[in-house]
Amino acid sequence: MSTTRTINAYAVLEAGGRFEPFSYEVGELHPDEVEIDVLHCGICHSDLSMVDNEWGMSKYPLVAGHEVIGRISARGSHVLNLEEGTVVGLGWHCGYCGHCHSCKTGDQNLCAEAQSTIVAHHGGFADKVRADASSVIAIPEGIDLESAGPLFCGGITVFNPIVQFDVKPTDKVAVIGIGGLGHIALQFLNAWGCEVTAFTSSESKRHEALAIGAHKTLNSRNQGEIESAAGTFDFIISTVNVKLDWNLYVNTLKPKGRLHFVGATLEPLDLGAFSLITGQRSISGSPVGSPATIESMLEFARLHQVKPLVETYPMSKINDAFDHLKSGNTKYRIVLSNR
Amino acid sequence: MSTTRTINAYAVLEAGGRFEPFSYEVGELHPDEVEIDVLHCGICHSDLSMVDNEWGMSKYPLVAGHEVIGRISARGSHVLNLEEGTVVGLGWHCGYCGHCHSCKTGDQNLCAEAQSTIVAHHGGFADKVRADASSVIAIPEGIDLESAGPLFCGGITVFNPIVQFDVKPTDKVAVIGIGGLGHIALQFLNAWGCEVTAFTSSESKRHEALAIGAHKTLNSRNQGEIESAAGTFDFIISTVNVKLDWNLYVNTLKPKGRLHFVGATLEPLDLGAFSLITGQRSISGSPVGSPATIESMLEFARLHQVKPLVETYPMSKINDAFDHLKSGNTKYRIVLSNR
Repeated sequence: MSTTRTINAYAVLEAGGRFEPFSYEVGELHPDEVEIDVLHCGICHSDLSMVDNEWGMSKYPLVAGHEVIGRISARGSHVLNLEEGTVVGLGWHCGYCGHCHSCKTGDQNLCAEAQSTIVAHHGGFADKVRADASSVIAIPEGIDLESAGPLFCGGITVFNPIVQFDVKPTDKVAVIGIGGLGHIALQFLNAWGCEVTAFTSSESKRHEALAIGAHKTLNSRNQGEIESAAGTFDFIISTVNVKLDWNLYVNTLKPKGRLHFVGATLEPLDLGAFSLITGQRSISGSPVGSPATIESMLEFARLHQVKPLVETYPMSKINDAFDHLKSGNTKYRIVLSNR
Repeated sequence: MSTTRTINAYAVLEAGGRFEPFSYEVGELHPDEVEIDVLHCGICHSDLSMVDNEWGMSKYPLVAGHEVIGRISARGSHVLNLEEGTVVGLGWHCGYCGHCHSCKTGDQNLCAEAQSTIVAHHGGFADKVRADASSVIAIPEGIDLESAGPLFCGGITVFNPIVQFDVKPTDKVAVIGIGGLGHIALQFLNAWGCEVTAFTSSESKRHEALAIGAHKTLNSRNQGEIESAAGTFDFIISTVNVKLDWNLYVNTLKPKGRLHFVGATLEPLDLGAFSLITGQRSISGSPVGSPATIESMLEFARLHQVKPLVETYPMSKINDAFDHLKSGNTKYRIVLSNR
């Protein structure tokens, strides 16, 4: 199969702009690259952050989209592990340096030179996307393709710390923020065997959280209810990007417990050292996951039928989809589809 | 051997007071307790905090002292593992509940009901002290007794996180604060096989740190020098109780690195979540260590001749010793001796 010469995408031309049809020329496929026909591409909140240049690193025209499900349409001459026609996924990273300590030890997601799919590279809101084969993962049979895109960023972001920090099935865990990431975290942690508590802010969210995978809920707006959970959790994952009273949550940790951040608040975490010291507690953070961890996640998701809950739009309705994302009423993740 | 009826100690009668001779009556030895003839007792900065009621939990008359080296003079009827005449050490804890999850899993130092040696209990600035046998550790042959006291609080406080957080001999590590705790941390980490960097604030301290066990030093007052160490360390242990620019230190961590606090600053740690997330970094704290970890520490200290550097005063000169501690010129730990 030959490579394309033109990729037809949707791009934003300036910070905060709307998406417009945008075509760009591509040259020869790099020997280590694959070209992917995009079937579906999830929308992540970080796509919106990049559209709006919130992090100051956006380049325009910007083709966002980094939760790609597609079919290999061509492969470079050095690519031996992926065949044309294979259905694959592509997430936040589309290449790694391959030679740093992180890459050599299987932590490619921590590679300082990793190439982001949507930073100085055109992403998956398009008919095709290119990526280094090392960053592309074959989708196992039995995974629903339409909803699988969000596993490649939102999903791996919450699955990875469960693996990295050795969360045990006997652990009592909690999830802060039951949205795009949190609703996948509830499913993974439930399937992991843990007793799962959701911190929720309303009665309607409480019922949804219980339906998705939580065994219990605590009202995140009720300080007394949080205080009464002192010493309860081995592991808490926070998916929110707003400032909460973190010391209140630290105190709900057991001795040796961990409060883990995958949602970034720009405001400092003004933590007291004393409750970390007395309880031997940890605070940590992590980004996405390595290719090997993505593979493990897909196998685990298939076995346990963990599936992002998605609302699907045709790729051509990308602006409507972003308007819906901005409304804050997404249940729980949006996917753009070329089908 | 029979138990005593009167213990002759030095006590402070009010917050911030001077030590005065103070005798107190004791009853029958509890079946699980031992009575110890105090040979030496180290002075820890937390003794001063308790004298001054900095933490609001001091009871007067207060007999401080929780770095005890002594000889078992009597044992309760249930005590089978320690014999009269055995030389032992006693640290921050003089008893544990024995039935909570932390106790059952060997983390007695995290027991919420653990009895502190100097909180609502009379400590080691005395001729004798009593403690639950579970908290008392026999000193192996080959440990210098005069300098061993500080291992039981300062020493275990810096040794414990090396064990708990799985520091590896191939790790690059750093110590912030080369004082009573830090000078022991340098020795342990050097013996552990790590490449050890000391953050020091003066040229004279630099030379001392290198002599004690550091392979390298960085000037903690030179922001540029700290910035140039970005991405260097797997593990940093902070022993200071003053506020530093913690984000500067977080950035000297490698991916997956840990900044660990054993010195408590009362001011919040105003940490940015972003550098934790991108580098999968952790922040943590811990207090002293369990009896089993103290045993491991003593064996390791004996093998590698890790030895607190101490200045010794007769027990009767306790007020002079505290004046010296307050001067801030201690090199590096003070021991009171009954010999």
